[in-house]
Amino acid sequence: MNDTDSTNGIAAIDLNADLGEGFGNWRMGDDAALLDVVTSANVACGFHAGDPLTMRRTCQLAAERGVSVGAHVGYRDLAGFGRRFVDVAPEELAADVLYQLGALDACARAAGTRVRYVKPHGALYNTVVHHEEQAAAVVAAVRDFDPALPVLGLPGAVWLRMAAEAGLPVRHEAFADRAYTGDGTLVSRREPGAVLHDPELIAERGLLLATRGEVVAADGAVVRLRADSICVHGDTPGAVEAARRLRAELERAGVRPTAFAA
Amino acid sequence: MNDTDSTNGIAAIDLNADLGEGFGNWRMGDDAALLDVVTSANVACGFHAGDPLTMRRTCQLAAERGVSVGAHVGYRDLAGFGRRFVDVAPEELAADVLYQLGALDACARAAGTRVRYVKPHGALYNTVVHHEEQAAAVVAAVRDFDPALPVLGLPGAVWLRMAAEAGLPVRHEAFADRAYTGDGTLVSRREPGAVLHDPELIAERGLLLATRGEVVAADGAVVRLRADSICVHGDTPGAVEAARRLRAELERAGVRPTAFAA
Amino acid sequence: MNDTDSTNGIAAIDLNADLGEGFGNWRMGDDAALLDVVTSANVACGFHAGDPLTMRRTCQLAAERGVSVGAHVGYRDLAGFGRRFVDVAPEELAADVLYQLGALDACARAAGTRVRYVKPHGALYNTVVHHEEQAAAVVAAVRDFDPALPVLGLPGAVWLRMAAEAGLPVRHEAFADRAYTGDGTLVSRREPGAVLHDPELIAERGLLLATRGEVVAADGAVVRLRADSICVHGDTPGAVEAARRLRAELERAGVRPTAFAA
Amino acid sequence: MNDTDSTNGIAAIDLNADLGEGFGNWRMGDDAALLDVVTSANVACGFHAGDPLTMRRTCQLAAERGVSVGAHVGYRDLAGFGRRFVDVAPEELAADVLYQLGALDACARAAGTRVRYVKPHGALYNTVVHHEEQAAAVVAAVRDFDPALPVLGLPGAVWLRMAAEAGLPVRHEAFADRAYTGDGTLVSRREPGAVLHDPELIAERGLLLATRGEVVAADGAVVRLRADSICVHGDTPGAVEAARRLRAELERAGVRPTAFAA
Repeated sequence: MNDTDSTNGIAAIDLNADLGEGFGNWRMGDDAALLDVVTSANVACGFHAGDPLTMRRTCQLAAERGVSVGAHVGYRDLAGFGRRFVDVAPEELAADVLYQLGALDACARAAGTRVRYVKPHGALYNTVVHHEEQAAAVVAAVRDFDPALPVLGLPGAVWLRMAAEAGLPVRHEAFADRAYTGDGTLVSRREPGAVLHDPELIAERGLLLATRGEVVAADGAVVRLRADSICVHGDTPGAVEAARRLRAELERAGVRPTAFAA
Repeated sequence: MNDTDSTNGIAAIDLNADLGEGFGNWRMGDDAALLDVVTSANVACGFHAGDPLTMRRTCQLAAERGVSVGAHVGYRDLAGFGRRFVDVAPEELAADVLYQLGALDACARAAGTRVRYVKPHGALYNTVVHHEEQAAAVVAAVRDFDPALPVLGLPGAVWLRMAAEAGLPVRHEAFADRAYTGDGTLVSRREPGAVLHDPELIAERGLLLATRGEVVAADGAVVRLRADSICVHGDTPGAVEAARRLRAELERAGVRPTAFAA
Repeated sequence: MNDTDSTNGIAAIDLNADLGEGFGNWRMGDDAALLDVVTSANVACGFHAGDPLTMRRTCQLAAERGVSVGAHVGYRDLAGFGRRFVDVAPEELAADVLYQLGALDACARAAGTRVRYVKPHGALYNTVVHHEEQAAAVVAAVRDFDPALPVLGLPGAVWLRMAAEAGLPVRHEAFADRAYTGDGTLVSRREPGAVLHDPELIAERGLLLATRGEVVAADGAVVRLRADSICVHGDTPGAVEAARRLRAELERAGVRPTAFAA
Repeated sequence: MNDTDSTNGIAAIDLNADLGEGFGNWRMGDDAALLDVVTSANVACGFHAGDPLTMRRTCQLAAERGVSVGAHVGYRDLAGFGRRFVDVAPEELAADVLYQLGALDACARAAGTRVRYVKPHGALYNTVVHHEEQAAAVVAAVRDFDPALPVLGLPGAVWLRMAAEAGLPVRHEAFADRAYTGDGTLVSRREPGAVLHDPELIAERGLLLATRGEVVAADGAVVRLRADSICVHGDTPGAVEAARRLRAELERAGVRPTAFAA
């Protein structure tokens, strides 16, 4: 959902992307390019990606550009990049998330900033949409770390409902490069057409999300969506180009890319 | 170096031990017993031992008993329990230490306390006694995390000199169960008689350290030692018994076991 | 199912247990005691437990006692000790199992023996009872490694059916210390009475399994069970004592503990 | 040292490169390009890089192209990519190497080939040039795995002397893209000019190594070098191009790129 700046009437929206997803000598994605596009950086915390030095440098780069640092917490699974569901006990998951939050926050503070929000990664992101025990564990960990820390996720997710009940600020994200169903949920990646690649179309959809909180669903219906942030990707050159195009289109239309938590 | 309480003239000394050294399903040492003996707990931070749930529980138990939580930072080496020198680049080591500090601090804060000091573990402990680059990296990490956080180590260690220069509070530890040379350094564990096992003798030496800051060296000389804390061990039943005996002896002599940082 | 030795009419059964479940400085279970009881050792292969040196030493000890070495393959999850389901892709799981088989076999061969069977561990053991894709992956890995290598598991498990179809020798295990339902499946550990602790009763049930292939179910019915091997435990002193008692009872009754694959 | 094929008088030399250095979702180097250039592939075994599926696929690709698979064994250090010295005890190192050999061999055999030689990676490569205990450990592990398995390394390395004493076939490698001193050792990478980048010059030096066993040292002297294999690199597009150029130059000159162990 877009905000209107009270002083000058300019609409604003956050742009978030995954960053710092290297590990040791391995790199992934074009962080430098993304940091010029986004206003919020989901920084990997060492469990699915992100060694401590990469975390520190990513926080430093984000801080220098005024990009907000978010904790991209994941399952302990470097080999699977956090993309495999792990049936971890809630108590262990809560401790794992708390540990990651503290570790990234130390890196962020050393860079002159701090962790400003939390977004689960990969399989954990998908799991806490519906898995009550793991959802509750993530929420408990965030609250134990900082009861005023915003959480970012998919509208309708179980963990966001629990987070709201726990008093955590809840922010919602939408995808300009994903197809939606008529009831406002994402079309599964297994379906044809689930992921869009045309930069022009992506920019257009992002603008509609930012300015009207709407998306055109796969069935042609116009669906209202809560979108405090639009998630962009940097895993392919095309994705980076689409993200750049989206930002330019937003700015051209007078929508100011602004971190939801700064 | 022992302190004398200004209000009532009672001498005080800290007792520290390594805790939370399990990982996952594996346990090590008798934490419950040690927590009734020590005033400072060196808690493993996940790199050489200590999974997040164990860290959280250890912080909780320490907080409940008024035992100070210290960060027992180590090399990233679970398979070697942090006891193998790793020629890690200073920049990486600093990030690794910062990460561990933040992670443990989150666990400590969730337990109502916080990290109150830093003590390197195992091979890192030994390395920063003399290795300038790694010593500087550890000091930089602590200062970046909290420029007022005390550090605990061996008198004469390079890293403690650097820590003092960086303005960090420096505390020194001594060993009641280790033989010393005439110049106040530890007799190598490879030498016969380097480690003492007689609880009575250990208690006697601990009392001498606490009350007079002195130790009888292997050559019979009485050596003055700075001792803000005495390190005790819990890895064998005999060690736990010796630690208990030492504490009882201190209390009997009117020396109050007191955390140096609380 | 018990075998009768063709030359002298003595019944024989295998006794298997999990061994080598330490990692680095951490130990688990009483391997020395178990090695005097069992005829088959399920040796951890480094993914859920078992560093290479522990694997080598365990193989050496097993070889010295004539105990068969089996590969106790698990999910890549040291922090969870392989007890958490991981939704790993079949292709990855097959590679993980193949890797573990080769690694343990190298350790076994250096000790003068070799891997003689495969038994999945923990959550993988439970998953391949019913999960078709993961079951097929484990079977494919074993067949790729050695198409004549026996597999050991629970009667009725999906992966054993697939193993049989793939031409792998299939062996079944039963539990003398677990309650069974009337249809021959294990009573869930969450139910009261699921695990037996009385050494005398365990020995008696083990003898019935070995000599008649029968178990008395929780509802009192006598159920026929295929049992090529009886699984014993060493994680508590009581469990080791029960295992010793069972072996003594078998020998007293003329049943020779014999590895099913040697 | 180049060989002359007895049947037709054509000189032959091996070309080796590091392959399979990804881990999980992370990739490194251009394996596809290198596999068309080299005759021997040093395949990472999971300790510094190389997850099991990557290992399997790399073995498969190598087997399809008739490229020999070598075990690129390293320290257990994913975060450091095996480039940091680890002071591991010899007994542990020997077990670590044995484990890696077995794991890769299982992958190779599933691809219809097997491990045909051993080359240590990174910091281990450098350490066993001079470190007697670690050198002996690596040699013992190779001999325990297969007393006829060739080892590949730097002329003059301590571990190769020990390998020869242990009866292992010893092969030597040289570098067409590295500067040499007048006594035939590599110029340290810290020195200017230590690494060559000009594809033409690299090809020329490689040809001289292959046909005459000679290199022009930094001081201009012509030095004789034993070279059974020339090591090429694929970590930059320029390196791949230089490797291709070298191979083409060799073939043009009638030197047949041939694996030293097939």
